Amino acid sequence: MSAMQYGFSDDGRRFTIDSPTAMPHASAFLWNRRMMVQATCRGFATAQFMQPEPAKYAHAPTLEARSFMQPEQPVYAHHPGRFCYVKDEDDGTLCSLPHEPVRASADGFAFEAAPEALTWRVERDGLAFEWRLTLAVDDVAELWTLRVRNASGRTRRLSLYPYFPVGYMSWMNQSATWREDLGGIVCSSVTPYQKVADYFVQRDFMDRTVLLHANAPDAWDARQAAFEGEGGLQAPSAITDAPLLGCRDADYEMPTAALQYRVVLADGDEREERFVFGPARDDAQIHALRANYLAPGGFEAAATAYADYLAGGRGCIDIRTPDAWLDAFANHWLPRQVYYHGDVNRLTTDPQTRNLLQDHMGMAYLQPATARAAFLRALSQQESSGAMPDGILLVDGAQLKYINQIPHTDHCVWLPVFLQAYLDETGDDAVLDVAVTDAQGHTASLAERVDRAMHWLLSARDARGLSYIAQGDWCDPMNMVGYQGRGVSGWLTLATAHALRLWAGIRARHAGDAAADVFAQGAQACNDAANAHLWDGEWYARGITDDGVVFGVQRDTEGRIYLNPQSWAMLSGAADATRRTQLLAAVEAQLVSPYGVAMLDPPYTGMRDDVGRLTQKFPGSAENGSVYNHAAAFYLHALYEAGDADRAWRVLRAMLPGPDAHDLLQRGQLPVFVPNYYRGDWRGHPRTAGRSSQLFNTGTAAWLYRCLIEGLFGLRGEGDALRIAPQLPSHWSEASVVRRFRGAEITLQVRRVPGVDTMRVRADGHVLDAPRLRGIVAGARHRIDVDLPA
Amino acid sequence: MSAMQYGFSDDGRRFTIDSPTAMPHASAFLWNRRMMVQATCRGFATAQFMQPEPAKYAHAPTLEARSFMQPEQPVYAHHPGRFCYVKDEDDGTLCSLPHEPVRASADGFAFEAAPEALTWRVERDGLAFEWRLTLAVDDVAELWTLRVRNASGRTRRLSLYPYFPVGYMSWMNQSATWREDLGGIVCSSVTPYQKVADYFVQRDFMDRTVLLHANAPDAWDARQAAFEGEGGLQAPSAITDAPLLGCRDADYEMPTAALQYRVVLADGDEREERFVFGPARDDAQIHALRANYLAPGGFEAAATAYADYLAGGRGCIDIRTPDAWLDAFANHWLPRQVYYHGDVNRLTTDPQTRNLLQDHMGMAYLQPATARAAFLRALSQQESSGAMPDGILLVDGAQLKYINQIPHTDHCVWLPVFLQAYLDETGDDAVLDVAVTDAQGHTASLAERVDRAMHWLLSARDARGLSYIAQGDWCDPMNMVGYQGRGVSGWLTLATAHALRLWAGIRARHAGDAAADVFAQGAQACNDAANAHLWDGEWYARGITDDGVVFGVQRDTEGRIYLNPQSWAMLSGAADATRRTQLLAAVEAQLVSPYGVAMLDPPYTGMRDDVGRLTQKFPGSAENGSVYNHAAAFYLHALYEAGDADRAWRVLRAMLPGPDAHDLLQRGQLPVFVPNYYRGDWRGHPRTAGRSSQLFNTGTAAWLYRCLIEGLFGLRGEGDALRIAPQLPSHWSEASVVRRFRGAEITLQVRRVPGVDTMRVRADGHVLDAPRLRGIVAGARHRIDVDLPA
Repeated sequence: MSAMQYGFSDDGRRFTIDSPTAMPHASAFLWNRRMMVQATCRGFATAQFMQPEPAKYAHAPTLEARSFMQPEQPVYAHHPGRFCYVKDEDDGTLCSLPHEPVRASADGFAFEAAPEALTWRVERDGLAFEWRLTLAVDDVAELWTLRVRNASGRTRRLSLYPYFPVGYMSWMNQSATWREDLGGIVCSSVTPYQKVADYFVQRDFMDRTVLLHANAPDAWDARQAAFEGEGGLQAPSAITDAPLLGCRDADYEMPTAALQYRVVLADGDEREERFVFGPARDDAQIHALRANYLAPGGFEAAATAYADYLAGGRGCIDIRTPDAWLDAFANHWLPRQVYYHGDVNRLTTDPQTRNLLQDHMGMAYLQPATARAAFLRALSQQESSGAMPDGILLVDGAQLKYINQIPHTDHCVWLPVFLQAYLDETGDDAVLDVAVTDAQGHTASLAERVDRAMHWLLSARDARGLSYIAQGDWCDPMNMVGYQGRGVSGWLTLATAHALRLWAGIRARHAGDAAADVFAQGAQACNDAANAHLWDGEWYARGITDDGVVFGVQRDTEGRIYLNPQSWAMLSGAADATRRTQLLAAVEAQLVSPYGVAMLDPPYTGMRDDVGRLTQKFPGSAENGSVYNHAAAFYLHALYEAGDADRAWRVLRAMLPGPDAHDLLQRGQLPVFVPNYYRGDWRGHPRTAGRSSQLFNTGTAAWLYRCLIEGLFGLRGEGDALRIAPQLPSHWSEASVVRRFRGAEITLQVRRVPGVDTMRVRADGHVLDAPRLRGIVAGARHRIDVDLPA
Repeated sequence: MSAMQYGFSDDGRRFTIDSPTAMPHASAFLWNRRMMVQATCRGFATAQFMQPEPAKYAHAPTLEARSFMQPEQPVYAHHPGRFCYVKDEDDGTLCSLPHEPVRASADGFAFEAAPEALTWRVERDGLAFEWRLTLAVDDVAELWTLRVRNASGRTRRLSLYPYFPVGYMSWMNQSATWREDLGGIVCSSVTPYQKVADYFVQRDFMDRTVLLHANAPDAWDARQAAFEGEGGLQAPSAITDAPLLGCRDADYEMPTAALQYRVVLADGDEREERFVFGPARDDAQIHALRANYLAPGGFEAAATAYADYLAGGRGCIDIRTPDAWLDAFANHWLPRQVYYHGDVNRLTTDPQTRNLLQDHMGMAYLQPATARAAFLRALSQQESSGAMPDGILLVDGAQLKYINQIPHTDHCVWLPVFLQAYLDETGDDAVLDVAVTDAQGHTASLAERVDRAMHWLLSARDARGLSYIAQGDWCDPMNMVGYQGRGVSGWLTLATAHALRLWAGIRARHAGDAAADVFAQGAQACNDAANAHLWDGEWYARGITDDGVVFGVQRDTEGRIYLNPQSWAMLSGAADATRRTQLLAAVEAQLVSPYGVAMLDPPYTGMRDDVGRLTQKFPGSAENGSVYNHAAAFYLHALYEAGDADRAWRVLRAMLPGPDAHDLLQRGQLPVFVPNYYRGDWRGHPRTAGRSSQLFNTGTAAWLYRCLIEGLFGLRGEGDALRIAPQLPSHWSEASVVRRFRGAEITLQVRRVPGVDTMRVRADGHVLDAPRLRGIVAGARHRIDVDLPA
């Protein structure tokens, strides 16, 4: 222990220590009537004040609660990560893979995203490192490979320190130690409970975190504070001050998992190490992880299994266009993102009903059976009123949480929206007759249940025929418009019309026009009401508040125009040709930005008490004037439905960071997923406009994929046929796609041919009178050639 | 923007960038059926898995939720703190005050805790720095002073960078900028809401954080990421790479508050700067902060006001003993801690009822009127059954939270415990007749209400006469013992007996023996039941579970003996002389450790499903075998009540880190407050045993102060008299105290006098027959001399 002078002053009113290191946590506190601040000798401070519950004004740079995934979540030095320190034992230099925590510059660096793995490649001083992550399929297990190759022309002596910080696990019980028998560092914790019932839920939690190795290291450290020492993360004392890690355990101290391998590499030599990192419940699970993955061939078998898993989410199109980035994105990355949403439901237990239905709308193109089952599950949770709940419970004991506790009124809309896409893709009209039993034990056919849902939508309108918004609709955070029960949603009125129209079409085919009539009439009534009360002269208003204030209109200085009502007025048929021209011009003039189409403009700069949470969000962020890709995708869909190919192309392409470096850097986003938003307010905040949310949970993926399939390439099912109506942007001279459809494989080649004035379609060499391919059977292959006017 | 190579591979399945700095947030994600992991190009990673709700296995090293204050909360590089970077403009060297973030070693360092201020003094390279924090009284405002004096013998050119990290304020809206008109950096945020009702609570929150200066700086930075740059906190790029800070604002980016002062100091020159840091609602509040504190003389006026505020919590004893550290602690620090608890109620809006009553038991010695009001407020929230609620609501709209939602059964016990101390100290028997109206509008006198509470305690017992524990009693986390409604608490049975005895005594004085008889008989019944069912041969058991398992007994291998039942069996009179000897021996043998008396032993190493949460806690931490000072203080009180002066002294002294350096370092605690616990399990975890929780919220303070006053110095009110019964440890030859009592000032001098065989007391020079000073009137001064046997 360090020498230290310390003691009370003679009058006892001051206590002093003269070292910031001997007692690093030594603290004292001050308080007054409204606050307290506790400071340590090193300068750290925790302060709270009352307003009236305890609050903070200086914050840890992290999410303050276990919460849903958030956009633009900041990182910081101690943010969780996976690293490997490298010490040159000859000259003592220290660096780390991949970049953090040391942040040393490298001779070469590459971060490579592939569907099945993330790989960092770093070259430094003649050494080539590879740091690679892939996953197991059904285990919560990260599979890490470290490779180092010596190309320096001389023998090198190194220490490699894989470092997996584990962080603050629990205020109840946390510890960590080396387990020789298990082959790694085991960090243990207990999830705290206060209510007895929670204990029985939590007691089987996987409360351990383990780092397992294939080869035993030379030393280890499991205690974060001791590992860092005074050097901190950039130069941990455990590494710089001693030849070997301290082999220290953690007893109710913050755990970590650090290993040390001392290696000597002759020129040309290579070394590989493998690790498994993840949670576990008990020794048996840890043994199983080791047996499954760290035995010889374990990673190879896991890679095969994971590739098989990913192949299960193979897309239904392979495209080839003049835009190579779009091809890569559409062929590999976008279906992967759609698959993620549909196969694991965003890793939630209570997905919002609208999200589940739209996510599985995308899944209809990948795994129709999965989509079908999800739809039936959702419908089995329909309420007796015909309404759909705010979230769909996926596991026993799940509860509606967060935003799902706030009443929204749009969920029924998504039933026919899903069904239209699903039935077009599969022709599975038989699903309409499937019996669905709800929680009350009542059984009804799917079609009857959707009937009820549509009637509920029709009933949830005011005397004017406008749809109540309650505390929100698709735009979650607009929750002050109608919480008193009177406010209505312009978008939802139009979306109701669109849903009713879709359902009327499906119902007519299924049960005849008589069964569909009420819905067709309802759609017309909604459209009429919207035109009567929401058309503002150049575009449709967003809604009318409890107090009768129409908003999203020309007289508003903020939130003057919203995108959604315009898109859905096109889809629902509310907008006639004149109004369509007007609203498109308004969108073009006010919402189109360099980074896509904003959801509203101008962004709100402060709270509007009658609109709500959306207006509290930072201008340009999230829904408040951002390029909210989900809304942009609705617009895109509407444009393709309207045959507006060139405008659609611009909207579509803006969802993907382009090959232009400036664009890529400004967005800060790799083109391997579409994020839920890019920041908007490009006039007000040009510096940060375009920045990606980095959040890959978004209904955008499904819609964008649908738009590529049914819009850009125009290959949509229609009854028992495949309709062919590609909408290439005018600057493309050709494009091709292989489309998998109901088990058949159709190759479409589209060319612009000089002298052609209307689209000409040949199927397997024969000219089609109507652009529909019929008689499709599973296993067949077809070749379609489309000539477009040049 | 940095040059960067990037792009898709030919097959589109890989996307690569070759820079970790050009797009620092660039990320990609992997998922499988049970998890997802999103990693950035720099190596940061966020992973979640389902069990069934989203969970993490690598954690940010911080509390994961806005929660109550936690013990042993870890700090980390980005933990909130208050710092000042210092750059030598001539040689470029960088250091920081007080130690973090640069962690450079200093020529001299002092961290000084005084009741009114925390001061760091750092000497480095001929420069003497002072960094000082004090508080305003009624504003949430930290008042900071920076002083630097040049004693280097040469002119120095420096840049001083006060740096107040503000951290992640909100996922809704956060920004920061310089406000010339307000004189500082203003960071803005919006507290997120989802439920409409929350909005109306939150809309007036002080959601800004401001750093205001007395003198305008030369430059500033309000954007955390840009301030740090690649240099990180240890060498921020904004400081090392440019002569002036970048004057950058933050737009939905993590805010910070950094200023820069360029100063030139001739040898002997000194510079002082002042700052105010804290939250604010709006410009008007910020203007007021500036006007109140940063105008000339503002800090001086605030210091006077704060000293006046602290003087309001002056203790009732000034002691002088052979132990100088105890004197300092008892005269300045312990009453300060008691005052903190009583004046601001631990900065909660719903203190646990037991905490409020015990905290104000301490306040009875400082501000009896405040204690009286708190007691009456608590009693006004009594339930119609006579039970007390789990927490006392202090402000409109407050709700019972956290542990206060878990039913506990001990709250009524603390009513007579408080009253005994309060009445002894004040003689205010009139309070017993005060009418108290409850939430239902029913009015009853205080005495009638306590009667009902005592009857409720008597009723909440099983057929054996043992007290039900429900989901907990004083030992909060023992919540599986009786949640099914049958389990009983040994401690609570004895505590009920003690409370009934105390109340019988008060009631007899107030209304005669007849009124008291039922309570005296009840006490006896509880004691009899405890002796019949809980005496285990050497000590008292802790309880009996729902399933009839007696625990805290000899056959248990963990949790074999608990301290509380022993202490309270002494207080309640359950233990006769024989049993008292036995249980004291058991405590001595099993619970006494180098760092105090453990609450139980041996600590639990795993969950006992029939005992509950306590057994999940880390062995030696919190209540699971720690030296839980609150429990130790009960024991201390019982020892003084029993006249066991030497044993009491050892318990008392162990609560305070001693002048012994090893003890101080092992505990890591300054002797300026008593923490809620020191880690126990000194046999199982000797390395970490004794470590302080650093948590200053604890009922220990009140009990410890009471024990000093009434036990060690033996000056307790008794009816209209002051009883004199000092219990000095036998190795003290003398001690003295000035005692303020009911407005009089009594100086007590205790001496061990050879030849004296029983205590001899003189008051103002006259020998007293009985050791009671009578006729005390406010404003009087008395001198008492006590001679003790040597």
